[in-house]
Amino acid sequence: MKLYYCETLSPRKACAVARHLGSPVEFVRVDLPHGEHRQAPFLAINPNGRVPVLQDGDWSLWEANAIMCHLSDLAGADLWPHDRRQIEVMRWLSWDSQHFTRHTGTLWFEHVVKPHIGMGEPDEATVAAALAETRRSARLLDDHLDGRSHVVGDSLSIADFALASALPDARAARIPLDDYPNIRRWHDRLNEFEAWRQPFPARPPAVAA
Amino acid sequence: MKLYYCETLSPRKACAVARHLGSPVEFVRVDLPHGEHRQAPFLAINPNGRVPVLQDGDWSLWEANAIMCHLSDLAGADLWPHDRRQIEVMRWLSWDSQHFTRHTGTLWFEHVVKPHIGMGEPDEATVAAALAETRRSARLLDDHLDGRSHVVGDSLSIADFALASALPDARAARIPLDDYPNIRRWHDRLNEFEAWRQPFPARPPAVAA
Ligand SMILES: N[C@@H](CCC(=O)N[C@@H](CS)C(=O)NCC(=O)O)C(=O)O
Ligand SMILES: N[C@@H](CCC(=O)N[C@@H](CS)C(=O)NCC(=O)O)C(=O)O
Repeated sequence: MKLYYCETLSPRKACAVARHLGSPVEFVRVDLPHGEHRQAPFLAINPNGRVPVLQDGDWSLWEANAIMCHLSDLAGADLWPHDRRQIEVMRWLSWDSQHFTRHTGTLWFEHVVKPHIGMGEPDEATVAAALAETRRSARLLDDHLDGRSHVVGDSLSIADFALASALPDARAARIPLDDYPNIRRWHDRLNEFEAWRQPFPARPPAVAA
Repeated sequence: MKLYYCETLSPRKACAVARHLGSPVEFVRVDLPHGEHRQAPFLAINPNGRVPVLQDGDWSLWEANAIMCHLSDLAGADLWPHDRRQIEVMRWLSWDSQHFTRHTGTLWFEHVVKPHIGMGEPDEATVAAALAETRRSARLLDDHLDGRSHVVGDSLSIADFALASALPDARAARIPLDDYPNIRRWHDRLNEFEAWRQPFPARPPAVAA
């Protein structure tokens, strides 16, 4: 199996799960800055033109959340549980896509990606709206994590990986993590996993252009 | 069990599934235009302040996608399958939240909700961006539906309900459905279900203010 990735937000959660589980995948880097994801060979495996993608023979699976589920199932792990917890994991994945990482991801894009690829200054109105929504949903998550070690039950699930997507870059993305001590504490615990700190293969030193 | 709803986008899919399955729920309307969802009694059952919510004794479940899964599980139905199809349903739910209904939902909000609640004119830049993204993802979905009766396999799943969320109002929302014949055909078939056409309880005639 091949796991196509780049060192960005959505691939992070899929790569972290693959590393955490020791999944038998070959990591294949896609050169987003040079638009490799918009070219025919990549579009043939993901018509959505985005990373990550898991390719298994003829079958390709895109959408990071689905990839995490599938890797957990293949490993017989319970990061994607098949008991009562499943509905709770689904609740948080859905909330994450539609609220939390939707907005933390916008802060990350405006403050981290744009300068990196020469797209200019962050858009002020976009940042203000995303920050307000981030604060609103961070409040909810912080309350939820009060007295809890994990988002669902007392063990790790793909909901933890999904919700944390943008947090490793919180400072650069200007996500005000320090105002939410329960989120910080929970994310510090996630950082104890090497798979979360280092989800991507090491890159060879850049060659001077 | 109580299912809190309003006649809007996200509740539609949860209510349609409840009706389709004949789930034993009492429908409870939340008065969004008057801000009932921002008041303490409602926030106590959903700190996220949105509909739908399924309340079952002390437990409340919010996020429409999770509610659909739970209602299917309770009914022993396979709208949320527990075999190989589950990963595919997850793929499309995730893609729907992050791409398709994210953008069709914006068109719906700008063209249907805003005028209805006196929020003024649609924002031109927002509409243009959402329309471009809607076209990009509608192309993908239309290609996927070519020769298929349903989004996953050959039977109905919650992925069909989720992806169709904004389509009943396509005309008013200015979603260019006519350019995507496979999507139209698939949605016409969904419309054969009364649960999809009429997901909400009938409302008593409005009383003059
Ligand atoms: N819904 C997708 C989103 C993936 C996504 O947006 N990936 C970004 C990198 S974080 C990407 O490939 N962007 C390239 C582009 O949008 O052109 C998922 O969850 O996998
Ligand atoms: N992620 C939620 C979204 C629910 C949602 O946005 N509901 C809207 C109606 S379609 C709402 O309650 N809006 C009120 C508000 O945002 O103030 C879900 O999927 O259930």
